[in-house]
Amino acid sequence: MAEFSVNQYDIMVNVFSLATVVMGVASVFFFLQRSEVLPRYRLGVTLLGITTLISAYSCYRLQVSWGEAFSVVNGTLKVSGVAFNEGYRYIDCLLTFPLLLIALVHTLDIPARQVRVLSTILAVLAGEMVVLGYPGVIATTAEARWLWWGIAMVPALIIVYQLYFGLSGAIAAEPAEAKRLARKARLLTVVSWAAYPVFYLLPLLGFGGSMTYTGTQVGYAVAGILSKVAYGVLLYRIAAAKSAQVDEVAHSLRTVRV
Amino acid sequence: MAEFSVNQYDIMVNVFSLATVVMGVASVFFFLQRSEVLPRYRLGVTLLGITTLISAYSCYRLQVSWGEAFSVVNGTLKVSGVAFNEGYRYIDCLLTFPLLLIALVHTLDIPARQVRVLSTILAVLAGEMVVLGYPGVIATTAEARWLWWGIAMVPALIIVYQLYFGLSGAIAAEPAEAKRLARKARLLTVVSWAAYPVFYLLPLLGFGGSMTYTGTQVGYAVAGILSKVAYGVLLYRIAAAKSAQVDEVAHSLRTVRV
Repeated sequence: MAEFSVNQYDIMVNVFSLATVVMGVASVFFFLQRSEVLPRYRLGVTLLGITTLISAYSCYRLQVSWGEAFSVVNGTLKVSGVAFNEGYRYIDCLLTFPLLLIALVHTLDIPARQVRVLSTILAVLAGEMVVLGYPGVIATTAEARWLWWGIAMVPALIIVYQLYFGLSGAIAAEPAEAKRLARKARLLTVVSWAAYPVFYLLPLLGFGGSMTYTGTQVGYAVAGILSKVAYGVLLYRIAAAKSAQVDEVAHSLRTVRV
Repeated sequence: MAEFSVNQYDIMVNVFSLATVVMGVASVFFFLQRSEVLPRYRLGVTLLGITTLISAYSCYRLQVSWGEAFSVVNGTLKVSGVAFNEGYRYIDCLLTFPLLLIALVHTLDIPARQVRVLSTILAVLAGEMVVLGYPGVIATTAEARWLWWGIAMVPALIIVYQLYFGLSGAIAAEPAEAKRLARKARLLTVVSWAAYPVFYLLPLLGFGGSMTYTGTQVGYAVAGILSKVAYGVLLYRIAAAKSAQVDEVAHSLRTVRV
């Protein structure tokens, strides 16, 4: 592992801490607000809260592991010899990527049978993508890293295809405000998820050292917050918009009857 | 205890961490979603949440105990001399196996009196199975281990019999979707619980060493996630499907009346 400066150490400590608290409060947000949407959208909001809770846990574990690997004493970085375990982020991806897609499917107005099929397809693809990336993560040669990157990109691209073609009918059928938000959420997914294959390639493109490493960790935190919290809030707003609409219809019906 | 490699140590750390977080968020899922099913199914969902909460605690204790027994410093595994305590898993089985079967009985539409009788029978059998396995766990001879394995298999097989014959009428009487899911849950129980007697026998069949040990720990984590989380989600879906059905009937009645 590269040699870090005290500044880089500090940035890392603060970024892990920021990510932990953002993920943690995001899950409190989703858990409290789920009761404010119609029952049919609550499962999706529950899954968003669970996703950010998993990430709060992983970010906290990363933070603790970083603190066990390094410390700053009297202005000097001390290396404990204990390895920094990035495995927590890998497990996070394995669990949260499928959940994020399942939450999307449960937020759109898709017939129950199709919800099951789409959830399964997207979750399996997301899981495959993460699992197939692993041999490349632990690979010792550039060839193996490139190979597994390419293999993992296959399910990744099928997910993008599914989001833009498989779900296009369902998104087009949403009411205006929900449609606008769903398109945003879809774009946000593609953009924020793209950080992972890019960071994966950096060592192969000749980037390395403590500067790249620190930048990558900051980038993972930003990508995580965008793909889980910002995306989750968009999905919540889709559910909230559709719930308000039904409230209004119910209200107007009541007014007519009275 | 066998000598572990750094890789095996890492796998164990990450698997215990994965199991902890999966069990933890599963219990959050059940606790939140219980309000979405009809009141009569809520007790079952609460029990599923409690079961996964017990497992989240045990997996966390295993993780901590593992970290107290070993650590990796400068790429070398250090043995602290503190024993790794697998007792947490044993206690977990003692508590969760009966709860998993009670949750199933409360998810099916069985008359209240029979629910009580079936819950008691299945819970006692599951408890007996775990208790009778214990003398074999601490046995020092192969004969004693085989003997107690055989004795513990008696309640285990009666449970399988009860699931396939005792409950067959109740499952057959469920509505179509619930019936399909209940059969899946029953099969999943038999398959995932079977991991325990198989792992119990491994030392007797000549398997040993750090590789088998690591594999067994991973296997326990997978079996735990299948038998508690995947099974729990199936049971939740049974309850949710029957609740939605009632919602629809109520809705159509209301429409007719208007």
